[in-house]
Amino acid sequence: MRVDGRERTQLRPVSITRNYIKYAEGSVLIEMGETKVICTASIDDKVPPFKKDTGEGWVTAEYSMLPRATAVRNQRDITKLKVSGRSQEIQRLIGRSLRSVVDFKLLGERTIIIDCDIIQADGGTRTASITGGFVALVDACKYMIDNGMIEKMPLQDFIAAVSVGIVDGNKLLDLCFDEDSNAQIDMNVVMTGGGRFVEIQATAEKSPFSREQFNEVLLMAEKGINELILIQKEVLGPLAGEIGESK
Amino acid sequence: MRVDGRERTQLRPVSITRNYIKYAEGSVLIEMGETKVICTASIDDKVPPFKKDTGEGWVTAEYSMLPRATAVRNQRDITKLKVSGRSQEIQRLIGRSLRSVVDFKLLGERTIIIDCDIIQADGGTRTASITGGFVALVDACKYMIDNGMIEKMPLQDFIAAVSVGIVDGNKLLDLCFDEDSNAQIDMNVVMTGGGRFVEIQATAEKSPFSREQFNEVLLMAEKGINELILIQKEVLGPLAGEIGESK
Amino acid sequence: MRVDGRERTQLRPVSITRNYIKYAEGSVLIEMGETKVICTASIDDKVPPFKKDTGEGWVTAEYSMLPRATAVRNQRDITKLKVSGRSQEIQRLIGRSLRSVVDFKLLGERTIIIDCDIIQADGGTRTASITGGFVALVDACKYMIDNGMIEKMPLQDFIAAVSVGIVDGNKLLDLCFDEDSNAQIDMNVVMTGGGRFVEIQATAEKSPFSREQFNEVLLMAEKGINELILIQKEVLGPLAGEIGESK
Amino acid sequence: MRVDGRERTQLRPVSITRNYIKYAEGSVLIEMGETKVICTASIDDKVPPFKKDTGEGWVTAEYSMLPRATAVRNQRDITKLKVSGRSQEIQRLIGRSLRSVVDFKLLGERTIIIDCDIIQADGGTRTASITGGFVALVDACKYMIDNGMIEKMPLQDFIAAVSVGIVDGNKLLDLCFDEDSNAQIDMNVVMTGGGRFVEIQATAEKSPFSREQFNEVLLMAEKGINELILIQKEVLGPLAGEIGESK
Amino acid sequence: MRVDGRERTQLRPVSITRNYIKYAEGSVLIEMGETKVICTASIDDKVPPFKKDTGEGWVTAEYSMLPRATAVRNQRDITKLKVSGRSQEIQRLIGRSLRSVVDFKLLGERTIIIDCDIIQADGGTRTASITGGFVALVDACKYMIDNGMIEKMPLQDFIAAVSVGIVDGNKLLDLCFDEDSNAQIDMNVVMTGGGRFVEIQATAEKSPFSREQFNEVLLMAEKGINELILIQKEVLGPLAGEIGESK
Amino acid sequence: MRVDGRERTQLRPVSITRNYIKYAEGSVLIEMGETKVICTASIDDKVPPFKKDTGEGWVTAEYSMLPRATAVRNQRDITKLKVSGRSQEIQRLIGRSLRSVVDFKLLGERTIIIDCDIIQADGGTRTASITGGFVALVDACKYMIDNGMIEKMPLQDFIAAVSVGIVDGNKLLDLCFDEDSNAQIDMNVVMTGGGRFVEIQATAEKSPFSREQFNEVLLMAEKGINELILIQKEVLGPLAGEIGESK
Repeated sequence: MRVDGRERTQLRPVSITRNYIKYAEGSVLIEMGETKVICTASIDDKVPPFKKDTGEGWVTAEYSMLPRATAVRNQRDITKLKVSGRSQEIQRLIGRSLRSVVDFKLLGERTIIIDCDIIQADGGTRTASITGGFVALVDACKYMIDNGMIEKMPLQDFIAAVSVGIVDGNKLLDLCFDEDSNAQIDMNVVMTGGGRFVEIQATAEKSPFSREQFNEVLLMAEKGINELILIQKEVLGPLAGEIGESK
Repeated sequence: MRVDGRERTQLRPVSITRNYIKYAEGSVLIEMGETKVICTASIDDKVPPFKKDTGEGWVTAEYSMLPRATAVRNQRDITKLKVSGRSQEIQRLIGRSLRSVVDFKLLGERTIIIDCDIIQADGGTRTASITGGFVALVDACKYMIDNGMIEKMPLQDFIAAVSVGIVDGNKLLDLCFDEDSNAQIDMNVVMTGGGRFVEIQATAEKSPFSREQFNEVLLMAEKGINELILIQKEVLGPLAGEIGESK
Repeated sequence: MRVDGRERTQLRPVSITRNYIKYAEGSVLIEMGETKVICTASIDDKVPPFKKDTGEGWVTAEYSMLPRATAVRNQRDITKLKVSGRSQEIQRLIGRSLRSVVDFKLLGERTIIIDCDIIQADGGTRTASITGGFVALVDACKYMIDNGMIEKMPLQDFIAAVSVGIVDGNKLLDLCFDEDSNAQIDMNVVMTGGGRFVEIQATAEKSPFSREQFNEVLLMAEKGINELILIQKEVLGPLAGEIGESK
Repeated sequence: MRVDGRERTQLRPVSITRNYIKYAEGSVLIEMGETKVICTASIDDKVPPFKKDTGEGWVTAEYSMLPRATAVRNQRDITKLKVSGRSQEIQRLIGRSLRSVVDFKLLGERTIIIDCDIIQADGGTRTASITGGFVALVDACKYMIDNGMIEKMPLQDFIAAVSVGIVDGNKLLDLCFDEDSNAQIDMNVVMTGGGRFVEIQATAEKSPFSREQFNEVLLMAEKGINELILIQKEVLGPLAGEIGESK
Repeated sequence: MRVDGRERTQLRPVSITRNYIKYAEGSVLIEMGETKVICTASIDDKVPPFKKDTGEGWVTAEYSMLPRATAVRNQRDITKLKVSGRSQEIQRLIGRSLRSVVDFKLLGERTIIIDCDIIQADGGTRTASITGGFVALVDACKYMIDNGMIEKMPLQDFIAAVSVGIVDGNKLLDLCFDEDSNAQIDMNVVMTGGGRFVEIQATAEKSPFSREQFNEVLLMAEKGINELILIQKEVLGPLAGEIGESK
Repeated sequence: MRVDGRERTQLRPVSITRNYIKYAEGSVLIEMGETKVICTASIDDKVPPFKKDTGEGWVTAEYSMLPRATAVRNQRDITKLKVSGRSQEIQRLIGRSLRSVVDFKLLGERTIIIDCDIIQADGGTRTASITGGFVALVDACKYMIDNGMIEKMPLQDFIAAVSVGIVDGNKLLDLCFDEDSNAQIDMNVVMTGGGRFVEIQATAEKSPFSREQFNEVLLMAEKGINELILIQKEVLGPLAGEIGESK
């Protein structure tokens, strides 16, 4: 039995609250156990230089933690005058993941910025950001359709993410912080609704792992992500049906 | 009648949720209408240089907005590599205000950091930060008493804050963003439970004001702050009774 | 009797030297006792984004101290890679104060930058910056009239500022540094020639103050500012007559 | 046939030159085709805070490109005042990878800094940095043994890395830049001499991939890394025999 | 005849006002024609790392311009988040020059910081900073003697600096801005009271110069510096006699 | 005899390798003894503001050291968030020197950026950067001619640089690091193929020098630079003949 009483292959309780921030075009509070993330989607009518005059859009992400999202207060980036390497790495992962299901032509020459702000961190903040950020992205796309900015949903598939790992020899789904800090392998997987992978990041700082270990935890991740996508569909209701139509 | 249906001298609905973030020694979600602020209090065993070896403590504050706390997304400080002047001004005000009711000797040589992160901004974020930050501060002090770090509550009085102003010739209490942006006078008042002032900041960018106008809105602020302190007391329950004992 | 032999309601000796820097469109050395500030006014043909294509102008201020303006050498901002919070707060106050008497339509789509550099600091640097900065602003406007850039003086009234406070129970006008560091209340007041207020900032870090105390020192500030505006008028000579004509 | 005439499962010509920089305790020029990286290993007698007084050491890495390592000149980090997110991500990967084979107890309380400076970039710079950085690390450890700082080689295994991917449907080993920019899947694998994995990072920005595709390219990576480790062994000569003895 | 009516080998009117800033241990306003520089000398009881525990001191300099010291307003360093290359180069020159006449053993383990702030710039600001900075340095040393911090003047010689150049074929001493911007050769010379050189910096951005041209303007510089040292001696009065006694 | 066995007036072995980096329009590895510098020349189609719409181009330089170019590892600029003053001073010198032989009209409205990255530093890095940077500049100009961007070589003369100094009373050409750190005088000279000077920078931090000493070492520098220009000519082969034709 796990530290919070879960089965090995069980997700923590997941809750996704839409329209959490009244100003954003899309916004979500996603809670996975004690991990809480506010994801907002903002529409910007500019694109990065390499997309100028292509008629295509872009999606980018920013990731940040409130100082007391963690047990020990962490200084704000601006105090240290640098974005932490960890945050940079994570926000690049979030952006890359979400972009993999976007039809940039349908989006048109604009950028959607996904801000993921961690209110409380108990492991799995980057994967929760992807899972919640996707729902905020859907809402922002709906906003654009409703306002005549685009014609149809520019999203080709669902996307969600989860962490898996091996802790004290046990293969576990959806690690909480306690488990994560004792993991021999820590792996983050991003997968589409169609069951194809977008990112697999497996890391073994403590001791290297074998191909067999890798394969087993990857299977667990697939199971977890499928459950998360079901939750996304439920939360989105009828909107869910519009996703994938552009393919 | 006001934009949100209130009377001129009526506060917006106020809600203060204690223990909002599980890691912080004190933490609060304060909502004043649509303005929502997470205030956490963190205990640090260091003090600034000018307090070293004095046996006395310090209280400081940081203030920041999430990018989509506002109608138009604002860039993060770290992107611009500078804290906005507005944030700096506000966090100095919050720190100064809270310090005015702290007994630094009783606090001992440690710093309490009050982080005020604006989740959603609809006017009055700095005054809500003071009112909510005080409750987080009380909880952090209680934490220290419970853990044997200090002997008694090092707070000499309650403190709360509110904005008042004149909009289209009408004197109004607790301005929302819409009112604030059209105000001829905008005034922030910080007052103790004992009815004495800690800060009065009156600003007239549009047209200068008279002493009479100033006096009338100041009266309104007193009324509003007294109501806010009643709410603080209710939220704190029995803990409220420990405040002021050190005086 | 005060530390420098003044009466309680007496200003320090004030001297305003116009045309202090040969390159600036307006420039002033203002001395209030031992406090010495160089204020320059520079005309820039750009405006901030929110003023673009409005036909209206803007006034902004920057405030900085030379390293040895103070008893202990302070590091330059660039060494710390951040503008001090105190400087940011002060330069925002100076800008806001001066803007309150400017007719932006008459100024046309350009910005006037008021640089206030403290050569020697003995208390009251922010209020001296406003009082001196106004004279530099007048000269820059005159420069624009003389060069055919604008048609009439775009200033609607005089403006000056002074500090007041309570030290050891005594209410005092125009605090020097020694008095300021022992003040129970420290208050900065910005007022127009017409006797209306633009900013009132009262702060009580040591012990909160009552409404009565506040009212008494405010009266002192009014007296002091009226004297300062007389000095501005004398220094400006015939130019003084052009101010307020645009109202 | 590939753009540079290689077979699909063929590495580019690899060359590792030891003692490339006379001052560094370990230094290597690694060339993989047209990709050229200078890796130096520097011994520092300090450790990060979390290692203080543990008797254990640390290994960290920095990664940077010369401005003209690429077809289009890239601005230096200092010009933009921020480390590029890409560089941060890569240097974290290099550090993590090398640490996985270090015995921190044997290393003692000191840090080894691996600087990877890209002289010319033609794809695979991060994997070349790991492969070359390991050799520099071995030499720095040898330096410490020779100078009586440590008693035996604190490295438990060899480590090397390679990229693999799918380009136009073809599974390829060791992508050059041209191939990399057209890859549907891009994957970086870090593996030990013992054939266990330390990092697997698979990314599909263009189109998601299946488990089968993933498995096939992973096999290719294993083959490539085994070849690279043979080259490391040859280059290190007798020193190679000391690695793994600490296990 | 020159633009300001001077002879070719004539200095501009020079004025050195001691004790210009009341807080600094040494302070000077130096005016050379329209160029005006405030030089302060501050005593710091720390030394840079390479001087720790050597019993020896250090002298360093900082150079900065007020925004309107020049015809076109220049942005503050902090706005651009970098010290201008020009300022860095100049402050290194000032520091190096002054250090050449200091006996670091007599100074003891402390640093003197020379701040040179340009109030108005009309050419020759770096040389004026050296000439004026030396006088401020003397006064700070005197302060240390008077306060029992050191026993005798730790300065081995006088030092002053001047610019020379060739403008429209004419060799000129002490260039004003107008002359400087049209100079074919621009040369800054730093020389001791004993007639030996500390720095010679000759630059020809427009057209290279011959050895003969170089020698002629160098002679002019010697003449100018000798005159400046006479002025320093006059200004310092009896204190001048203490300089060089430590040799 | 010198530390490396050279005669007093002998250069270290010089090697200039053209086309060192495949992407740059011009690139060189210059080695002077153990000093090794990669110089690249990049063509940019923008010019600085003061050159806009003049039809004229610009040349600028950047100088940086790899962390282990030196005996003690130096932190990267980005870690300290500032370009070292030394680097700034040097890159300004390199830019100024190279510009002195460029015909900006012939170059047309574009900028050539010379990046000088020090791989290994053993004294004389700034002079090697100028000597090597010139060859890279020639190659970039040739590239522009070959690609029809300009019609003829926009370089009016050769340019090279060397250091000279006095060490233990001995006048020496081309100081290595060991000699440089013990030098009483350290002098860098930049001279054209026509034997005219572009920069002379003589510095005496330890003890001031006389005019005679200066003249003697300057003669040595002339000899050394003439030898370096012969090497440049040899390395450039037929291209050498095109330089100076634009005069």
